[in-house]
Amino acid sequence: MSAAANAEGARRTRLTPEREGELYTAVRDLLREVGYDALTMDAVAARSRSSKATLYRQWQSKPRLVAAALRHQRPPLNRFDTGSLRGDLHELARRMGEAKKDVAVMQAVAPAAHKNKDLAEALHEALIQPELEVLQSMLDRAVARGEAEAGAPAHEFFPHMVTGALMARPLIERCEADATYLKRYLDAVVLPVLVRN
Amino acid sequence: MSAAANAEGARRTRLTPEREGELYTAVRDLLREVGYDALTMDAVAARSRSSKATLYRQWQSKPRLVAAALRHQRPPLNRFDTGSLRGDLHELARRMGEAKKDVAVMQAVAPAAHKNKDLAEALHEALIQPELEVLQSMLDRAVARGEAEAGAPAHEFFPHMVTGALMARPLIERCEADATYLKRYLDAVVLPVLVRN
Repeated sequence: MSAAANAEGARRTRLTPEREGELYTAVRDLLREVGYDALTMDAVAARSRSSKATLYRQWQSKPRLVAAALRHQRPPLNRFDTGSLRGDLHELARRMGEAKKDVAVMQAVAPAAHKNKDLAEALHEALIQPELEVLQSMLDRAVARGEAEAGAPAHEFFPHMVTGALMARPLIERCEADATYLKRYLDAVVLPVLVRN
Repeated sequence: MSAAANAEGARRTRLTPEREGELYTAVRDLLREVGYDALTMDAVAARSRSSKATLYRQWQSKPRLVAAALRHQRPPLNRFDTGSLRGDLHELARRMGEAKKDVAVMQAVAPAAHKNKDLAEALHEALIQPELEVLQSMLDRAVARGEAEAGAPAHEFFPHMVTGALMARPLIERCEADATYLKRYLDAVVLPVLVRN
């Protein structure tokens, strides 16, 4: 855990995890109802029976509060190590396929993230960066074990392949990217281009 | 061109292409301003100085009108044939990288498409299906030339790889999927898994 994350943890000690969860639920409900632009800290305070002072003390800004609320319902992949790249990819498929996908709340935030740089940064830090780190450590271990070749051209696109697999299926096949589909995709596309030939 | 597309063309002969373009622009402007749910055929008629009767005669329904308006600004990839899979992929990267990406209007429609089956179907038919056909014909030619092996496991994911590459970069790198990035991705990931080893 970074020094910044520790400091953040210390600032939050006054809220119980239950209370924090209730607050995040209120934020996500409001996002679905009114969208990001119309969501106010006043409305969050009223809905969650807290004070604006508490909200600002804990999260500093609306973008950071919203990013934390989205992260809370989709906790970052914890690191895991099955001992092989194939095993790690299958475990990744299982975890990502089973993760709850709240499309409505992400769609409520997306237009604002496109216009608002602070929000885009907070979302990237809360949702994307932790998953990039998990994928990078998976690839590093595969290289250390000699399964994958260091610096192979496809490696920089590992996160793009995984993220793309999740996003493309609803558009193309009009159904969710479940664990079975992800495992087939990772076996057919991702494993072959990552491993040493 | 299919029989359905011919019939559609015949129904539209009363509008000049310029007039049709103005109508589509009005639809897209309204989508950005009020979103899909609040967009009414009355508002489109007023904004485009046409009548609701004209709109319904030409497009039958709001989902079909909206799908046509989105398709108009992003015409489907025309088929092309450079004579090799590598050449076709590079041409694909160039065309997709240079295509105008109106993120705001797509984001205005996405939440409604998630809830509204008629809209989802109209969008799939207008925007996704034509591109799937272009990709399939590209792959069929590669198989016919012996560059790719018929039935290889990665083939069914060709559209997912291409769509995913477009969608993943803004999330991960926070910049658009331009032609240079797409060419690198297609060379590093897509070409190797499609071709015969």
